[in-house]
Amino acid sequence: MVGKTDASTVTVSPQLVEWQLDQLGRIGSQPDGGLVRFLYDAAWSEAMGLVEKWMRHAGLQTRRDAVGNVFGRLPGTTQADRTILTGSHIDTVRSGGRYDGALGIVGGINALAALRQLTEHPRRSLEVVAICEEEGSRVAGSLLGSRGMLGLADTAEMSALTDTDGVSVAEMMSEIGLDPAQVAGTGRRDVDHFVELHVEQGPVLDTSGVDIGIVTGIAGMRHRLLTVSGRPDHAGAAPMDSRRDAMRAAAMMTVAIDDIVRRVGAPAVGTVGQMRAWPGAVNVVAERVTFSLDLRHPSDAVRLRLLDEIDARCRNLAAEHGLSLEIADRWEEQAADMDTDLQRLLAETADRSGFSWSSLASGAAHDSQLWARHVPTSMIFVPSVDGRSHCPVEYTQLNDCVRGANLLARALYRLAY
Amino acid sequence: MVGKTDASTVTVSPQLVEWQLDQLGRIGSQPDGGLVRFLYDAAWSEAMGLVEKWMRHAGLQTRRDAVGNVFGRLPGTTQADRTILTGSHIDTVRSGGRYDGALGIVGGINALAALRQLTEHPRRSLEVVAICEEEGSRVAGSLLGSRGMLGLADTAEMSALTDTDGVSVAEMMSEIGLDPAQVAGTGRRDVDHFVELHVEQGPVLDTSGVDIGIVTGIAGMRHRLLTVSGRPDHAGAAPMDSRRDAMRAAAMMTVAIDDIVRRVGAPAVGTVGQMRAWPGAVNVVAERVTFSLDLRHPSDAVRLRLLDEIDARCRNLAAEHGLSLEIADRWEEQAADMDTDLQRLLAETADRSGFSWSSLASGAAHDSQLWARHVPTSMIFVPSVDGRSHCPVEYTQLNDCVRGANLLARALYRLAY
Repeated sequence: MVGKTDASTVTVSPQLVEWQLDQLGRIGSQPDGGLVRFLYDAAWSEAMGLVEKWMRHAGLQTRRDAVGNVFGRLPGTTQADRTILTGSHIDTVRSGGRYDGALGIVGGINALAALRQLTEHPRRSLEVVAICEEEGSRVAGSLLGSRGMLGLADTAEMSALTDTDGVSVAEMMSEIGLDPAQVAGTGRRDVDHFVELHVEQGPVLDTSGVDIGIVTGIAGMRHRLLTVSGRPDHAGAAPMDSRRDAMRAAAMMTVAIDDIVRRVGAPAVGTVGQMRAWPGAVNVVAERVTFSLDLRHPSDAVRLRLLDEIDARCRNLAAEHGLSLEIADRWEEQAADMDTDLQRLLAETADRSGFSWSSLASGAAHDSQLWARHVPTSMIFVPSVDGRSHCPVEYTQLNDCVRGANLLARALYRLAY
Repeated sequence: MVGKTDASTVTVSPQLVEWQLDQLGRIGSQPDGGLVRFLYDAAWSEAMGLVEKWMRHAGLQTRRDAVGNVFGRLPGTTQADRTILTGSHIDTVRSGGRYDGALGIVGGINALAALRQLTEHPRRSLEVVAICEEEGSRVAGSLLGSRGMLGLADTAEMSALTDTDGVSVAEMMSEIGLDPAQVAGTGRRDVDHFVELHVEQGPVLDTSGVDIGIVTGIAGMRHRLLTVSGRPDHAGAAPMDSRRDAMRAAAMMTVAIDDIVRRVGAPAVGTVGQMRAWPGAVNVVAERVTFSLDLRHPSDAVRLRLLDEIDARCRNLAAEHGLSLEIADRWEEQAADMDTDLQRLLAETADRSGFSWSSLASGAAHDSQLWARHVPTSMIFVPSVDGRSHCPVEYTQLNDCVRGANLLARALYRLAY
């Protein structure tokens, strides 16, 4: 038995972090180099099996819950029924990168492995989780893993949520041996803190050359689909001034949304990432165009004002051109503040470790956004090279990955021991 | 044997025209009421089988050529080896209407049926053709039927042209018993005139209340795909001013194209009918957006100047936003003039029949556009209600359909007897 040690000496294995990120980054790899690991698909199952094996090899007790989250546990001694939870998501966006989500899992496993090797058991239990779903890539709802853990998912929703092929989450679950009827019972009340290590996914740390970002809060977000409906007409025979062209209006709305968001200025961000036209023929004026909007701001009040302005502008454009406009909200996350005590603990731990750090808000959504509403939560960011993410070239240097995992291990030590 | 008759009395059966248009309009019907009859698909085969049966019932000699065009022939007497050809295409756009193409086939069958019943055999042979493909809906090349008849299609092209699933035209042909190796030999040199009855597909006749349009020429057309490439970024984490957003630029280009075409004014028309983004996720800034352009003008010189202006504007927009732009030409049809003698013959026949008529240019492309470059060609337009076409509500009143078929029958009489 090793005696208690100064937390600042806990150090993960860089070789293991590198190897595990590499192994995980091969699962779901596409011809373009990007990853596709969607909820409950074959790559997802393979990845979950692998991280479960790594957890076991690290000496952790593993289990799966009803939505498929995989846990590795280092049981506590005096307060074994209270848990400090760390981890991130296993799923990716379409053509996503190797670090988004994966780093938080690999970092968490190696942090717990390092703590287990260096010290005795913690006072409070420590757990690392590979979260089943965060991105919303396969089904419209997202954060399924954290919602499951927080008791916010139910069986009815599993039947209602479907992918674009019409397969329900319940059907997907049954196919891989999960029981949708158990979903509502998978919530847990033993988590005292959630701490998530993640790549920044933006350019702030990389540009400023700072080692660590300590997240102050996460921007609120609205996902919506806008559908413009006009009239299909023959692309040759219909004079321009007779047309009610849904594509023209959708393009004007896209430009207008971009203008409005830029006028408000950073940190407001707005994105039209999907657009589809019906009938979608070269020689037919589009009757209907559907496009997505992703709008975010760390202030919910500013975000809602922005949405109102965008609504008004798009409705005006539709009316001016004799078109109808339908706006369907698909997802909303309110802005979330990270716990100030935990931010302070991270800052002190970084200072003691000699890591430079700065506070920053996250434009990207995370599991932590949901956790923050229920338990004190914090996030550690490490730099993303060129700020690239959600794409094949997403990259974070090994030094930065290891530094983030070490900060995580040392903070967990201070929380759990 | 009935003696020769004044051509102005030849009259098709309104009941049969109505019934056949109704029957043909059910084949390929979709839930939205529109038709999908794509080259060589199941609906196409059913429709071709039906019109072949109607041709036989009308007493015509039927045959299929190597690309699948179906012919019904009324053999001539003294000049049996020379043919006056009428007809139109059996295929539709996605979610197309019941009159586009179909009227020219049904009108042609009934015109020949009426002539056969009323008079003896023609001097020159008369043929009606159901053309296998005009719209370019399934494969990028269009006018396959007329190109086949004119000896302008070859076997290599059949292997090279594929639908979006990668199935080649040659494979499609083999599946329905056509031999791609025979394509090059299916051209014919016996056609003296091509006369096509078609719905206007625009609002001119319907608005002016004129019975018949006699087409002076057909607008030239360019189909192209524009691909804007930028950088995929996280929709939350990438600040607006750091982005190279392909969707924003594609939207700006779409608006710019529309502006340029409107500034030049009628009869210029330009349409962006398709748009697709990659990766196409709500929460990812689009790396790449591909959209189509359909640009038309009856003057090829004006059209080419317009294309140059559009190119320059789009390339400037791409450069301003740090994006690359690829412009791929997919199809071009040069403007075509209809034969002036045939226009005069149609006008005289309309006058004698008491039909009001006006001359007009066609913004829509037609088989006649290609025929006009090889044999004297003419087109008869009848009104499209509200100018609607390429959509489920496409409609032409029965009176107008019958009037068009009667004018066709009387003109064919003057040409062939």
